[in-house]
Amino acid sequence: MNIHAKRIKDLQGLLKRERLDAIVVTRNLDIGFLTGYHMDDYLLLVSRSAAWGIVPNMLLQDFKAKAPHVEPVVPEGSFEQAVLDLRRKYKLAKTAFDPEYETYNRGNLWRKNGLAEKGGLVGSLRAIKEGQEAQDLRKACLIAGKAFALIKPRIKTGRTELSVYRELEDIMQAMGAKGPSFNLIVGFGPNSALPHHVSSERKLKNNEAVLLDYGCVYNHYCSDITRTYFHGRPTEEFKKVYSIVLASQKAGLAKVKAGVNAIAVDKACRDVISDAGYGQYFIHGTGHGIGLEIHEFPRVNTRVDVALRAGMAVTVEPGIYLNGKFGVRIEDSVLVTRTGCEILTKSAAK
Amino acid sequence: MNIHAKRIKDLQGLLKRERLDAIVVTRNLDIGFLTGYHMDDYLLLVSRSAAWGIVPNMLLQDFKAKAPHVEPVVPEGSFEQAVLDLRRKYKLAKTAFDPEYETYNRGNLWRKNGLAEKGGLVGSLRAIKEGQEAQDLRKACLIAGKAFALIKPRIKTGRTELSVYRELEDIMQAMGAKGPSFNLIVGFGPNSALPHHVSSERKLKNNEAVLLDYGCVYNHYCSDITRTYFHGRPTEEFKKVYSIVLASQKAGLAKVKAGVNAIAVDKACRDVISDAGYGQYFIHGTGHGIGLEIHEFPRVNTRVDVALRAGMAVTVEPGIYLNGKFGVRIEDSVLVTRTGCEILTKSAAK
Repeated sequence: MNIHAKRIKDLQGLLKRERLDAIVVTRNLDIGFLTGYHMDDYLLLVSRSAAWGIVPNMLLQDFKAKAPHVEPVVPEGSFEQAVLDLRRKYKLAKTAFDPEYETYNRGNLWRKNGLAEKGGLVGSLRAIKEGQEAQDLRKACLIAGKAFALIKPRIKTGRTELSVYRELEDIMQAMGAKGPSFNLIVGFGPNSALPHHVSSERKLKNNEAVLLDYGCVYNHYCSDITRTYFHGRPTEEFKKVYSIVLASQKAGLAKVKAGVNAIAVDKACRDVISDAGYGQYFIHGTGHGIGLEIHEFPRVNTRVDVALRAGMAVTVEPGIYLNGKFGVRIEDSVLVTRTGCEILTKSAAK
Repeated sequence: MNIHAKRIKDLQGLLKRERLDAIVVTRNLDIGFLTGYHMDDYLLLVSRSAAWGIVPNMLLQDFKAKAPHVEPVVPEGSFEQAVLDLRRKYKLAKTAFDPEYETYNRGNLWRKNGLAEKGGLVGSLRAIKEGQEAQDLRKACLIAGKAFALIKPRIKTGRTELSVYRELEDIMQAMGAKGPSFNLIVGFGPNSALPHHVSSERKLKNNEAVLLDYGCVYNHYCSDITRTYFHGRPTEEFKKVYSIVLASQKAGLAKVKAGVNAIAVDKACRDVISDAGYGQYFIHGTGHGIGLEIHEFPRVNTRVDVALRAGMAVTVEPGIYLNGKFGVRIEDSVLVTRTGCEILTKSAAK
């Protein structure tokens, strides 16, 4: 059984457990996860014993070839009506949709037709990375980790942030990546203090901080890594802040393990920075899940109460941001295991 | 007044016309359009006389610098509660949300709190490209058009689709593009017959069709172009099909004009192909709007009844797909004018 057929089976297991007859899946990423066919504008209906892809005629041949475990249905009317028709034909009385990701208009259409709300089923499957997807994620992270050693010696005084951005993309593509996993952040000097800086034409000067927050997509899976260093002779303040962030990140990584709450990982990072007197400058959460999306379940922050499970993939990325001066963030992507975690984004140096 | 401040003013004009006190904008692309600050995970509330950006603390400095026409609010609780608090404080009784793009869960939260449904307000502003955004769109299309003459002589027997994909990206980035505007389609031989082919490791052979469907992003605006040609000595069938598609596209382009219905443009393309006996092989709509998204309002197909307006940007892209053999699609991005259209994706040859 291929990985996508297995995922449909797993979802069917959840339908039984939840006493549902079927679920309509409308989110592109969820559909791609279950079918292996990543494309916009089609719908998936999964019952306890079957799966139908409602696809436009122009995708039919391609869909048949790439998702042989799903039965294609080319609708005569609207895609939604085709779902409702299948539901009636196969007597799928208890059919659900995910209210967190469905649109308000379509959710109301489903409700009017008697469908139920049930969130998180596909999400709970997507949260655990296994088999080929764990391998794809590893590869995406491996490429990102290796790219740091290749790009760093090429970041010289006078280069612009955007030129480094483009070269980073090229380096990762040359190693097999499809493209960047988000709008990469290349921040020089004070720009490193902006956690979501947009890379610009600013040129690198002697003796300032360089922050690279980047990643790539490999076979649909996203990696995420941040490295910060000082270009030139580091100031005492930079050295001090860097060592605090590094200690914070180590404390967070040491905490990651199946069964541990994500809030405890955040706290481990935050305590080190607060104890050093920089608590007010750590202005974001500690991390987030990665997978088909660059930000997905679970979040690692002060609020989201979720126990980590083996196979979850998250980032650990504390930072200190001194507005107008510089920022330091150190980030790795890790896979949660029963005994700790596997660091996926290894680089020659941090 | 900068372009983003003007857009907020325009939206405030629509609020008055619709007798609304305010609108909450939750879609990232709409928020970016109105503020100039393109970022995930924040909300915008626009009343007839003010605009508030509900932003996390970590974005505050950056937001202030880049969206000075919007008042930042850092929420203490949830972002949604901050919207509701502002609504109460400023007595914005008739506040609306867009049910087409809001999620089902959040839409219900708004409804429970007395907000109203009103779709399409920001969408109607986004549909008309003017000033700097028309310039950015022109530039994105100019880069894509020029790239064809540069890539074509480099597509030689034995090259893979993916290697051409990557070089196309590089060529466009070297001309100033941020990146590709979608997963570019490079299809060799029978792969050209799949309208949404995913570029692969397949190598180009002598005497087969090459289809390139690509575009780039320039300052957030997306271009879209398709060129098809025969690598080697074209077969009679290819020449015949190509000439039909070219005539179809010319007929469609000739029809585009402010006041004309999009369905009429689709019909102009479709009639040429049907009259030539290939109607059943034109298996998709004629085109779609482009802008901040690669597919946006208005669609150009057999069903969506919408009058074109000056400043709308759409693609015209008829095609004939002979499964297992080859496909031909010819696509340009155009800007609708009062007297016809401006073709934005010019290339040395079609």
